[in-house]
Amino acid sequence: MLNPDRLFPVEDKARDLARALYETVRSLPIISPHGHTDPRWFAENKKFPNPAQLFITPDHYVFRMLCSQGVKMEDLGVPRIDGGWTETDGRKIWRLFAKHAYLFRATPSRMWLSHAFEDVFGWSDWINEDNADQVYDHIAECLEKPEFLPRALFERFNIEALATTESPLDDLKWHRAIRESGWDGKVVTAYRPDPVVDPHYKGFVDNIEKFGEIAGVNATSWKGYLEAHRIRRAYFKEMGATSSDHGHLTARTENFSEAEAEALFQKALKGECSAEEADAFRGHMLTEMARMSLEDGFTLQIHPGSNRNHSNPVFEMFGLDKGFDIPTQTDYVHALKPLLDAVGMERDLRIVLFTLDETSYARELAPLAGVYPALRLGPAWWFHDSPEGMRRFREMTTETAGFYNTVGFNDDTRAFCSIPARHDVARRVDCAFLATLVVQGRLSDDEAFEVASDLTYRLAKQAYQL
Amino acid sequence: MLNPDRLFPVEDKARDLARALYETVRSLPIISPHGHTDPRWFAENKKFPNPAQLFITPDHYVFRMLCSQGVKMEDLGVPRIDGGWTETDGRKIWRLFAKHAYLFRATPSRMWLSHAFEDVFGWSDWINEDNADQVYDHIAECLEKPEFLPRALFERFNIEALATTESPLDDLKWHRAIRESGWDGKVVTAYRPDPVVDPHYKGFVDNIEKFGEIAGVNATSWKGYLEAHRIRRAYFKEMGATSSDHGHLTARTENFSEAEAEALFQKALKGECSAEEADAFRGHMLTEMARMSLEDGFTLQIHPGSNRNHSNPVFEMFGLDKGFDIPTQTDYVHALKPLLDAVGMERDLRIVLFTLDETSYARELAPLAGVYPALRLGPAWWFHDSPEGMRRFREMTTETAGFYNTVGFNDDTRAFCSIPARHDVARRVDCAFLATLVVQGRLSDDEAFEVASDLTYRLAKQAYQL
Amino acid sequence: MLNPDRLFPVEDKARDLARALYETVRSLPIISPHGHTDPRWFAENKKFPNPAQLFITPDHYVFRMLCSQGVKMEDLGVPRIDGGWTETDGRKIWRLFAKHAYLFRATPSRMWLSHAFEDVFGWSDWINEDNADQVYDHIAECLEKPEFLPRALFERFNIEALATTESPLDDLKWHRAIRESGWDGKVVTAYRPDPVVDPHYKGFVDNIEKFGEIAGVNATSWKGYLEAHRIRRAYFKEMGATSSDHGHLTARTENFSEAEAEALFQKALKGECSAEEADAFRGHMLTEMARMSLEDGFTLQIHPGSNRNHSNPVFEMFGLDKGFDIPTQTDYVHALKPLLDAVGMERDLRIVLFTLDETSYARELAPLAGVYPALRLGPAWWFHDSPEGMRRFREMTTETAGFYNTVGFNDDTRAFCSIPARHDVARRVDCAFLATLVVQGRLSDDEAFEVASDLTYRLAKQAYQL
Repeated sequence: MLNPDRLFPVEDKARDLARALYETVRSLPIISPHGHTDPRWFAENKKFPNPAQLFITPDHYVFRMLCSQGVKMEDLGVPRIDGGWTETDGRKIWRLFAKHAYLFRATPSRMWLSHAFEDVFGWSDWINEDNADQVYDHIAECLEKPEFLPRALFERFNIEALATTESPLDDLKWHRAIRESGWDGKVVTAYRPDPVVDPHYKGFVDNIEKFGEIAGVNATSWKGYLEAHRIRRAYFKEMGATSSDHGHLTARTENFSEAEAEALFQKALKGECSAEEADAFRGHMLTEMARMSLEDGFTLQIHPGSNRNHSNPVFEMFGLDKGFDIPTQTDYVHALKPLLDAVGMERDLRIVLFTLDETSYARELAPLAGVYPALRLGPAWWFHDSPEGMRRFREMTTETAGFYNTVGFNDDTRAFCSIPARHDVARRVDCAFLATLVVQGRLSDDEAFEVASDLTYRLAKQAYQL
Repeated sequence: MLNPDRLFPVEDKARDLARALYETVRSLPIISPHGHTDPRWFAENKKFPNPAQLFITPDHYVFRMLCSQGVKMEDLGVPRIDGGWTETDGRKIWRLFAKHAYLFRATPSRMWLSHAFEDVFGWSDWINEDNADQVYDHIAECLEKPEFLPRALFERFNIEALATTESPLDDLKWHRAIRESGWDGKVVTAYRPDPVVDPHYKGFVDNIEKFGEIAGVNATSWKGYLEAHRIRRAYFKEMGATSSDHGHLTARTENFSEAEAEALFQKALKGECSAEEADAFRGHMLTEMARMSLEDGFTLQIHPGSNRNHSNPVFEMFGLDKGFDIPTQTDYVHALKPLLDAVGMERDLRIVLFTLDETSYARELAPLAGVYPALRLGPAWWFHDSPEGMRRFREMTTETAGFYNTVGFNDDTRAFCSIPARHDVARRVDCAFLATLVVQGRLSDDEAFEVASDLTYRLAKQAYQL
Repeated sequence: MLNPDRLFPVEDKARDLARALYETVRSLPIISPHGHTDPRWFAENKKFPNPAQLFITPDHYVFRMLCSQGVKMEDLGVPRIDGGWTETDGRKIWRLFAKHAYLFRATPSRMWLSHAFEDVFGWSDWINEDNADQVYDHIAECLEKPEFLPRALFERFNIEALATTESPLDDLKWHRAIRESGWDGKVVTAYRPDPVVDPHYKGFVDNIEKFGEIAGVNATSWKGYLEAHRIRRAYFKEMGATSSDHGHLTARTENFSEAEAEALFQKALKGECSAEEADAFRGHMLTEMARMSLEDGFTLQIHPGSNRNHSNPVFEMFGLDKGFDIPTQTDYVHALKPLLDAVGMERDLRIVLFTLDETSYARELAPLAGVYPALRLGPAWWFHDSPEGMRRFREMTTETAGFYNTVGFNDDTRAFCSIPARHDVARRVDCAFLATLVVQGRLSDDEAFEVASDLTYRLAKQAYQL
């Protein structure tokens, strides 16, 4: 099922070189500095319940495609907010997936799933209605074995470091449990403060109160609020965190005076912020977070531009993260100016920019990252984390930002078994890109080998200090 | 003139496979579910007057390019609104075209014209000043023969179904005549209600009156107006229609309450709508049309984003559709939300989205069509209906929407002889794309053959129920 | 260091043809109709001071990349506004550059520098920390020789015509000196009136006074102001100018009545224009400049979309043109309408449009230039003046605008030694594009040779009347 030359250039000279480059990076350890796997898996090290729970129900890439062709999310076991019926029989869910597996032709999900089936579970045919039960049984059987427990897979996947993301309100008990277990897998957290920096986040006022309690300060004054952030960041740092992450609707930043910020914060605490004011407050908090990064060394990640929960009926029935987050046009050049005027020239700061709007690669992001010392470009993200998307990322950023203002690959996944598949795709696409540059006389052979290794391993380690 | 391997990949393995794929689809019947040919041609089956009237004067792709290099539209026979002089001598027009034919190098017009010259008329050189008269005479001679009458060409082109577009105010007499003639060519209409849904359409108030008369209801009340739509849609359905088409400036939709809609409609009838209100009304009507589609099964097509009649002087002298319609940036994610909240999760509805703004392919359209069951993506459209444009469409939509949320090809043409040429280009570009996927290990050989046939034939038939 | 087949297609048939095409254009004279070299070089014909002053300090492409990775601009000798310390030792600057030279991998700067090292100075290795001093010494030695003086290089580069850009307030003394020197190199000026058409330009009111003095009219009345433009344009024309150039933030145009324009101008003279009014005034002046072009035949260039001096701290310390100009999203379809309604159908006018927003190529610019007789498309510009950028330009404009609505290449450079390198890159990319079209059956062999020569030479000469 897996062509050994997949994603390499079609022409022979370039393909041969891509293959040679890939051979030198294919077995490098995985640095996964940004993702959404569940730390509980590694803390408890329990077996995964069944193939559907592993591959279908948690993976919005998979169920959104099925949904687009009329399969109901209830029938795929996606849990409902109101606790209403959803399918719980893993085999039934699996058959429904198998029946529609042709929909994934030429999509990255197909490539990730094929890779996991073949490389992780040793099953080397793509799935269809006829073999659905066989594949199910095969994977289910594997899942019973110790070598398919979360920690064993983590080791088999050759993961050197893996970051999850947690809210400041999280007690990080699973991360503590991992540390205390004596297991030496490096699973760290990252600081994602949406519930306490977004005035329109559900329960914001209560969150701030809880935030203060956890931190042991009064977080309802502006100073106390910032102090609470410092305290929680320090605790996250103890649990291995080296970064914070910010997933706002836009890339807007602000740099208010202390008095302005305090006033806005007090308004937020009264639940009186307009949409515009909430946006401004979130924007200002990016600048505050950047200032704290100068103190504690966290890499600051900005993930803007997703219009979350686009469908009201789906959001009301199923809640967050159900495949209905749709990218929107995103401006960076005006939005980031306040932050960059404040800290953009800092040589010891690392701000990693992501986008869901590919038009910004060549127009805004590469020119910005190609001049401001504090900026780096995150890899192709979410819907663009695909062979074509990664190729476009390199083609549209390299000429202006070079390779060294990028930070290697992020898998950003909730699907554990897709981690090696995703990193493999990124390595192949980068090697293909480099090989093409060499064959076109734009890069020397030696340099290509060095860059391949940098993109795969060194840049991610360095940018995230992992 | 026509390279048998045109548009296939350059590398041999991929080219060989593209050729093999193409061989299986090249002779499949043409489904043309959206276009602007004249039903009168098929009703009357009269000969086309002369080569210039067939190829130059009605084709804005052709005369806009000549205009861009200083050729006057009058000299190309483009009719003036004021009835002022324009050239009527077909041969003179033809010579002017021939003299400037080098301008079309590497454009789709060149490919379509070459295909028509060679494949339809058996003339196998490109045109220039020297051979202009010869080509003219050759084609003119052909046009005298019965095998070049509209119906004969329709059959020769292997068209299984062809849709034209008409206004609800049209009596569809030519469609009726086709039916009554006993000819078995399938030429159907489509419901394009701009004159009665756009408050700023020329003569809107009179149009509504006429609309009511034709439908036999009082269309000046909101309920009567909707009823008139239902009645006319039913009549269009009798004349073969399976779809409606909506060419608004933006993709804005609204979902007003009945009272709000009625109030806006009454304002429109008084000619008092502001630009904003007219836009809102058009947006609401998309949602109403979608609701009617749930009743009568019409596929709903949204064709937004053309800034029509960009040049005032040209519009004043020559009127609509003169090559001065220019694409603009188009938002879908916010614009479509009201419609999608109302009917986006309907499994039996087909809404086909088009765009003139390629930035929306990967950012908005593929993510939307890749999750909402009611949505499908129309093919690359208008200025993007070209080899590079079609390639970009596949590269930017397939990874997120897959193949099965697309609907095959639409030629959307006014130039009858370009229909086989356009479908041939689409088939070749799709086969080239599929072959490249296979050679890159992203799709299996078998799958590619199945997908090639789906993209060429099955998906169009299915999406438009033709 | 320079692969003779660089930038050609990878596949053999296409590569062979690209090579053949390139052989016919590689030695054609350079037409450089738009750039920012210093006329003083050619007037005085003094030797360039040292390698750092030639390659690093004046080239914002080079120092912005070094800055992005933490090198301080002071250490690169970039002069400070406040006259504070910056490095003056060329060798130290050069070593800093050499140490970071790996950052330029796969960037156009690397290609331009390599070309200049090898082709101009006969040094055929890329630079690094180890060979830094050797390269420095080698180039420094060359710079002492007469064959490396500005005029000798101009002749060696085979430059047939070179335009610089000057303000109407410039006395053009260096241009006059060139003329009076008897040297027959064709170095002409271009009219760039920002200081006197932008109400928010530093010193605008004083500039207008000076403008009137130089022109010998009272430029503080609207009529006198326009007359001053006419007088200065005539003087620029005497100094060889054939074009004007306009670098506004947006592409906005206006076409006010005389009374409105006069009122706005008087407000500007009082320093009372709002941002909106200043923008409107600049927009109106584009239309006035176009009208003057109808009188004096100047080609009008519009260079919009750069958000200049993005970093306040950098602007305050180092001033203009320091690599902190960032592209922004740019609308053309609405912005240009007033200008185009006024003069867009003029057959004897040449307006050349540029963009920093590649999304406008296929969506707006090619459709506009593909129909309005007065419009032409400038080549890929600034950050997009690179192999990938030039390829995207051709792929996204050719199908709608053809080749003949484009104007050949502009190097737009301040770095004299990069001129042959940049033109060579453009010629190679165009030949690669043409060869691919031929191999894909989209253009005939003969046509490709003719187009290659047109794109390299004829179109630039014609569009700029050089």
